[in-house]
Amino acid sequence: MKSGKRALVIHGPNLNLLGKREPDIYGSTSLAQINQALKELAETLDLKLSCIQSNHEGELVDLIGEARGHFDGILINPAAFTHTSVAIRDAILACGIPTVEVHLSNIHAREEFRRHSLVAGVCKGQVSGFGLESYLLGLRALTSELFKPKR
Amino acid sequence: MKSGKRALVIHGPNLNLLGKREPDIYGSTSLAQINQALKELAETLDLKLSCIQSNHEGELVDLIGEARGHFDGILINPAAFTHTSVAIRDAILACGIPTVEVHLSNIHAREEFRRHSLVAGVCKGQVSGFGLESYLLGLRALTSELFKPKR
Amino acid sequence: MKSGKRALVIHGPNLNLLGKREPDIYGSTSLAQINQALKELAETLDLKLSCIQSNHEGELVDLIGEARGHFDGILINPAAFTHTSVAIRDAILACGIPTVEVHLSNIHAREEFRRHSLVAGVCKGQVSGFGLESYLLGLRALTSELFKPKR
Amino acid sequence: MKSGKRALVIHGPNLNLLGKREPDIYGSTSLAQINQALKELAETLDLKLSCIQSNHEGELVDLIGEARGHFDGILINPAAFTHTSVAIRDAILACGIPTVEVHLSNIHAREEFRRHSLVAGVCKGQVSGFGLESYLLGLRALTSELFKPKR
Amino acid sequence: MKSGKRALVIHGPNLNLLGKREPDIYGSTSLAQINQALKELAETLDLKLSCIQSNHEGELVDLIGEARGHFDGILINPAAFTHTSVAIRDAILACGIPTVEVHLSNIHAREEFRRHSLVAGVCKGQVSGFGLESYLLGLRALTSELFKPKR
Amino acid sequence: MKSGKRALVIHGPNLNLLGKREPDIYGSTSLAQINQALKELAETLDLKLSCIQSNHEGELVDLIGEARGHFDGILINPAAFTHTSVAIRDAILACGIPTVEVHLSNIHAREEFRRHSLVAGVCKGQVSGFGLESYLLGLRALTSELFKPKR
Amino acid sequence: MKSGKRALVIHGPNLNLLGKREPDIYGSTSLAQINQALKELAETLDLKLSCIQSNHEGELVDLIGEARGHFDGILINPAAFTHTSVAIRDAILACGIPTVEVHLSNIHAREEFRRHSLVAGVCKGQVSGFGLESYLLGLRALTSELFKPKR
Amino acid sequence: MKSGKRALVIHGPNLNLLGKREPDIYGSTSLAQINQALKELAETLDLKLSCIQSNHEGELVDLIGEARGHFDGILINPAAFTHTSVAIRDAILACGIPTVEVHLSNIHAREEFRRHSLVAGVCKGQVSGFGLESYLLGLRALTSELFKPKR
Amino acid sequence: MKSGKRALVIHGPNLNLLGKREPDIYGSTSLAQINQALKELAETLDLKLSCIQSNHEGELVDLIGEARGHFDGILINPAAFTHTSVAIRDAILACGIPTVEVHLSNIHAREEFRRHSLVAGVCKGQVSGFGLESYLLGLRALTSELFKPKR
Amino acid sequence: MKSGKRALVIHGPNLNLLGKREPDIYGSTSLAQINQALKELAETLDLKLSCIQSNHEGELVDLIGEARGHFDGILINPAAFTHTSVAIRDAILACGIPTVEVHLSNIHAREEFRRHSLVAGVCKGQVSGFGLESYLLGLRALTSELFKPKR
Amino acid sequence: MKSGKRALVIHGPNLNLLGKREPDIYGSTSLAQINQALKELAETLDLKLSCIQSNHEGELVDLIGEARGHFDGILINPAAFTHTSVAIRDAILACGIPTVEVHLSNIHAREEFRRHSLVAGVCKGQVSGFGLESYLLGLRALTSELFKPKR
Amino acid sequence: MKSGKRALVIHGPNLNLLGKREPDIYGSTSLAQINQALKELAETLDLKLSCIQSNHEGELVDLIGEARGHFDGILINPAAFTHTSVAIRDAILACGIPTVEVHLSNIHAREEFRRHSLVAGVCKGQVSGFGLESYLLGLRALTSELFKPKR
Repeated sequence: MKSGKRALVIHGPNLNLLGKREPDIYGSTSLAQINQALKELAETLDLKLSCIQSNHEGELVDLIGEARGHFDGILINPAAFTHTSVAIRDAILACGIPTVEVHLSNIHAREEFRRHSLVAGVCKGQVSGFGLESYLLGLRALTSELFKPKR
Repeated sequence: MKSGKRALVIHGPNLNLLGKREPDIYGSTSLAQINQALKELAETLDLKLSCIQSNHEGELVDLIGEARGHFDGILINPAAFTHTSVAIRDAILACGIPTVEVHLSNIHAREEFRRHSLVAGVCKGQVSGFGLESYLLGLRALTSELFKPKR
Repeated sequence: MKSGKRALVIHGPNLNLLGKREPDIYGSTSLAQINQALKELAETLDLKLSCIQSNHEGELVDLIGEARGHFDGILINPAAFTHTSVAIRDAILACGIPTVEVHLSNIHAREEFRRHSLVAGVCKGQVSGFGLESYLLGLRALTSELFKPKR
Repeated sequence: MKSGKRALVIHGPNLNLLGKREPDIYGSTSLAQINQALKELAETLDLKLSCIQSNHEGELVDLIGEARGHFDGILINPAAFTHTSVAIRDAILACGIPTVEVHLSNIHAREEFRRHSLVAGVCKGQVSGFGLESYLLGLRALTSELFKPKR
Repeated sequence: MKSGKRALVIHGPNLNLLGKREPDIYGSTSLAQINQALKELAETLDLKLSCIQSNHEGELVDLIGEARGHFDGILINPAAFTHTSVAIRDAILACGIPTVEVHLSNIHAREEFRRHSLVAGVCKGQVSGFGLESYLLGLRALTSELFKPKR
Repeated sequence: MKSGKRALVIHGPNLNLLGKREPDIYGSTSLAQINQALKELAETLDLKLSCIQSNHEGELVDLIGEARGHFDGILINPAAFTHTSVAIRDAILACGIPTVEVHLSNIHAREEFRRHSLVAGVCKGQVSGFGLESYLLGLRALTSELFKPKR
Repeated sequence: MKSGKRALVIHGPNLNLLGKREPDIYGSTSLAQINQALKELAETLDLKLSCIQSNHEGELVDLIGEARGHFDGILINPAAFTHTSVAIRDAILACGIPTVEVHLSNIHAREEFRRHSLVAGVCKGQVSGFGLESYLLGLRALTSELFKPKR
Repeated sequence: MKSGKRALVIHGPNLNLLGKREPDIYGSTSLAQINQALKELAETLDLKLSCIQSNHEGELVDLIGEARGHFDGILINPAAFTHTSVAIRDAILACGIPTVEVHLSNIHAREEFRRHSLVAGVCKGQVSGFGLESYLLGLRALTSELFKPKR
Repeated sequence: MKSGKRALVIHGPNLNLLGKREPDIYGSTSLAQINQALKELAETLDLKLSCIQSNHEGELVDLIGEARGHFDGILINPAAFTHTSVAIRDAILACGIPTVEVHLSNIHAREEFRRHSLVAGVCKGQVSGFGLESYLLGLRALTSELFKPKR
Repeated sequence: MKSGKRALVIHGPNLNLLGKREPDIYGSTSLAQINQALKELAETLDLKLSCIQSNHEGELVDLIGEARGHFDGILINPAAFTHTSVAIRDAILACGIPTVEVHLSNIHAREEFRRHSLVAGVCKGQVSGFGLESYLLGLRALTSELFKPKR
Repeated sequence: MKSGKRALVIHGPNLNLLGKREPDIYGSTSLAQINQALKELAETLDLKLSCIQSNHEGELVDLIGEARGHFDGILINPAAFTHTSVAIRDAILACGIPTVEVHLSNIHAREEFRRHSLVAGVCKGQVSGFGLESYLLGLRALTSELFKPKR
Repeated sequence: MKSGKRALVIHGPNLNLLGKREPDIYGSTSLAQINQALKELAETLDLKLSCIQSNHEGELVDLIGEARGHFDGILINPAAFTHTSVAIRDAILACGIPTVEVHLSNIHAREEFRRHSLVAGVCKGQVSGFGLESYLLGLRALTSELFKPKR
């Protein structure tokens, strides 16, 4: 029997270039491959997935704001917006849906300005540094959150 | 006799969620109710009002840049962009129209990063902390600016 | 029928010099004119007003501390003390009366050290930048606070 | 036989409101009760006590400046002035009388701006966090200082 | 014989207002005039030019991300985004095309927050302060980069 | 057929108190339960696990230093040492074994001093905020690292 | 009749050297003399005392973690660890026993790096600057905390 | 023939203690001696002098605010208020009378917090470090300002 | 017909080593080659050029101070002095001649301390990052400044 | 009868341009006029004067280092070196001769980077803001220092 | 004839891994080889040496605290503790034995957080950057200190 | 047989005053004595030495820039320039000769601004705090560098 739980996967700016871009940092996996892997895992976790990528902060804010009622959880890689977007922070806060933040690279080992996340403080938690695996672990974390008994 | 003065009311990111979002901070009034209240007050102040909301910084910059010639004043709640948008600051500076900044919550009593406004320095003034009332007071401030004798 | 609500208007240091002092920043209105305008507005708002000015932080702290029981709200322009007085902050906190902070000039557009208010964090909200109008708007904000239905 | 030692107890701004003010931080004891408790303890410690409260930094500076010759030690709760008054710091330094600083609440567990004392560096020591007990311990510390053998 | 080299000229937010906006800082040249001048110079440099302006960070990121394969170099005036956009920085890094940053005004002589460029670190170099001339010099710099012998 | 891969699980200071300590932050799971869950997962991942807890930074440094040759990977929750131990950072760097950092709580949503990790920069990546689940996800991340094809 | 209350006295690093070490800062009293004086006072306060000194942060963390159930309160001079140990802070938080922090010297009058205590924020309060007397006052503070009526 | 020029000499907090207070920093001259020396010099400079000392910031602000019309220049040693009083800064700005700031000690060679003057920026200039001589030189500077030909 | 305009080219410290020094940052062009290229371009721009290099800040200040009357513009690469010399800044300000700052490398992409220029704020503009080309572009910028119609 | 006391007057970088340079800040007096005025005053003060100007930090350091034995005091306007030269600070410290620092403009009212003097901390005192008068007052301060009775 | 002088050589955390660890930073010499080289040099310097390594801050503090009476000097490489241990700083201060700090790598050329030493301020001096040679030079420095004539 | 290796010894500003200057910090040894001691040691190390002192940053930069080809290593005490000279840093980088930095006093135990060396990051290493001995140890370090087998 299906749980009927749905999750929204949001990829932030420049992630459409994955596989072509700085392969020594981000690896050679494409965004399509990530989405494919996520969907395969989602199936085993009894979760329905919608995946979206945008370079527009406003579109991400729109999406998150409209998520309530349509999705039970959000998996987000805010990419560059991690460090600059109060609007995405506020959107996550406002929509009230459990959110998990993921990063392909280990942001704690890069430039100083990448070490602070404006978004992490309103998420359930953060996974960073494991490439494609970050997404898969993040989806597991979100699932475990969605299926855990209420208290 | 009508003055013919027009004002543009701009609501920044996530304000479309008003009433649903963090009611302990922003109250339960919806954006439609705010616009309604503003329009009722505008009528008594002999002012014509256009109201717009967007989660897209670029749209706000477009709007402000095109305001000159169509509007005599701007009432803006930049929301999250208050703290991150140099582009909106520059747009206000460039359009040269008197602008008043308003905030629903008292931004001076919230997180450290919400205490600095990149926008306030190019506005006529700022009203913050009074919920819906902040908008109404801001509109009065703008009106008084628009109708005050030239010097 | 009168509401019987009373408000205390407090003017901080150097505001006795208003009209004589740096007119390009503060305008040419005198303190007496501000008080007169406030009283006229107060009458229409069914509010009784007492106005006081002092250059002494200690007197302001005395006044605020004694306000409870005699006043229902405070309208304060802490002027220079805005940026230096923890004592006034503590007094407002301690007296527990709704307080609104106003500034003639837009403090967010002046010297760096004027951009941080030690007082705003314990006030209901802040109005700054509209000259005499700041006071009138502040009084409206306070009134709306005093007359709003309890929750 | 009486020692003839006298101590001056100084209460800073807003402490006159004690018992009415933010009871979750400062407790429900009034200033009169504190002074009473201090005087009872003083008697057992063979010390004569004068207690004063003022919201005026200038009065506190006057008092400390005149203390030499009339008092052997000072017990001070500078309250809000702890964080802003170089003048009180200078007065304590100038009068040359052993001084003990006390705080009702644990200032190290409150807002960032309350964690730095401009006064502590010129006092013998500091007691903070124990409510009325802070004063009593501070008086014991002062006494032990006043009666300790010269070296 | 034509080289076939193409360059993308990107104008950031509010540059559509050029000529109308703060003429003491940016001069009275319009964006159309700048593009015209650039195209005339490009012709002499054997370069084909596409010019685009947008107030939307997301559109700039889209454009840069799609540039690879269509353009050999980028000339960008990120305007307000210079100081706030990690996304544009990442896009330039990801697309791997030589990029030159230009500014009409001398950003090093303006407000503190305009002195740091998030973008400059991933560009070939920066030209700032010479008005329209900044663009022309920037185009020369880019050309010299595009035509220089590989090493 | 067994892979023969071994991993060392290191729990930092105060984690022995788990289940008893600040349950609103860390949940009610005990350390024994975490180790049990980890071992069960390890079995399914074809990994052999040794688990250790210590409140002594020196012991953790000893352990990590001796890990080479005995373990193929490290899963570490440095707890309080996350923010203060250069020695653990150096040990991880020196031992040269892939290491994954985990945290029960979302350290990015807690006190300022907990937001910087001295250790993360030398780890493969970090998982934080998911309680017991953080450990399980961390173990998966480590496993995927250990079994991934060499390049 | 004995109350049966027990307190743990913890002396941090280098305090074993007391009496030999920098006598102009710490005086000539030895640790044994401090413990003796504490025990004498404890007797009059109807309290049983255990005293321990260690230079090992880990041992202090062990001790505090095990205190619950064996002790009703903790009196701690964290010495150098005051400024560097998040682990001790976490241990105090986790054990949930009322704790009082004491310092022989006035840490607020010493080097900048000694003015911030990582531990004070989780203690009941702090006494600093009175030499041996700091301990005795701290014990009184702790006692008064342990015997005060529950609210 | 007398010029009729009058100057106000203002001594800030704790300067009434001069001669008794920290003689290694401030010397053994009393305030009366300084005033006497100033008056003798004033006579030779054809200037009439009024001297006042107060420990109350509010009194200093009152005095400066009322100076216009009664005095042609101000000589001020703001002492501790140098570093904390925006109110005195504003008063000097508002009264519009040429003001010279003096300090007995070399404030640039003392504690960090004494190196920044909130007042100096609105004064004609500053003399510091020469004891009584600082006042005499300051008076000469003020005189030369008052008698210099208008431009 | 010759314009008779003259420009002074100033090379700061260590630039005499060009071609030998850190070729990966500065390229392999020698200073003589740069001067030669500049002179060739100057001829086409109807400008007379004097080129000088010095490792002595004082010599650069002397040169700039004496430039007025002998030169119409200055092209300067202050090299290491960019970040440390207030004297060169003051000299440029004082001589009142239009000055253009150039850098071989992109200073915005190097060590933190190289990102701030003390000199740029008093120059017309800055060109950085294009090697020899930076000088040529800077000369063009200066020329365009010198020949532009007065306003 | 002559005292035989000699003083060295040192003018720092760019002061040779005085009278030509930024007259709104530094006035129209030339360096020769300042030296003339100083020598006239010196005569009345029974002091012999040598005046020197240099744009070379090294020359100033040479001069100060050789002053001992040839001069009894130094009057220095370090100009731009005020803010950047540890070498001049060390030279003054090393030569052990009483030194007075003067500034034509009020450095406390200019750019942020001009408000800190590396030199003031090792001088007797500082006079700033009075133009030529600053030098004359500085010379009086130095004289009073040289002729004051030894203690 | 033997001098009978003894020195304690202390190696901090992770130095037991020397030779195996990051050879590009620390070289391939093992700790045993360093101790051997030190002992050979010590013999020629007429000094007796004890060498110890520990990863435990507490053990290092114990050792230093017990050194008085058993050793005449200390040669210490605090490694990671250099940057984090106030306890070791206090131990060196308390034991009162001349101490020399050494580092294998040039800590001034590594990560920002390695550039500040909490320990150096209480040592005789510091040698860093020369690998094994740092130890030998440090031992020579210590010897020269131990054998230098008392003053 | 002679190695023919030559080293340049550079003494920075004010070191010509050694022996006369602040003897409690720098000792009573003169520069000539240091050079003599260095030459004696150099002879035993089979090294030829040239020694130079200058107060002129430019001369030091000249010297270092010309060193290549004439010297095999540099021993430098940059004195005050340690903290202010990017030019010397760049010169050392550019000349490419192994350089050792020495300081007479322990710069890590002095004023805050002396604790950061702009030069150390481009040197082989640093020796500080041992007076004349610092030079001798630095020469040994340099020698060991010059004679060590190439890798």
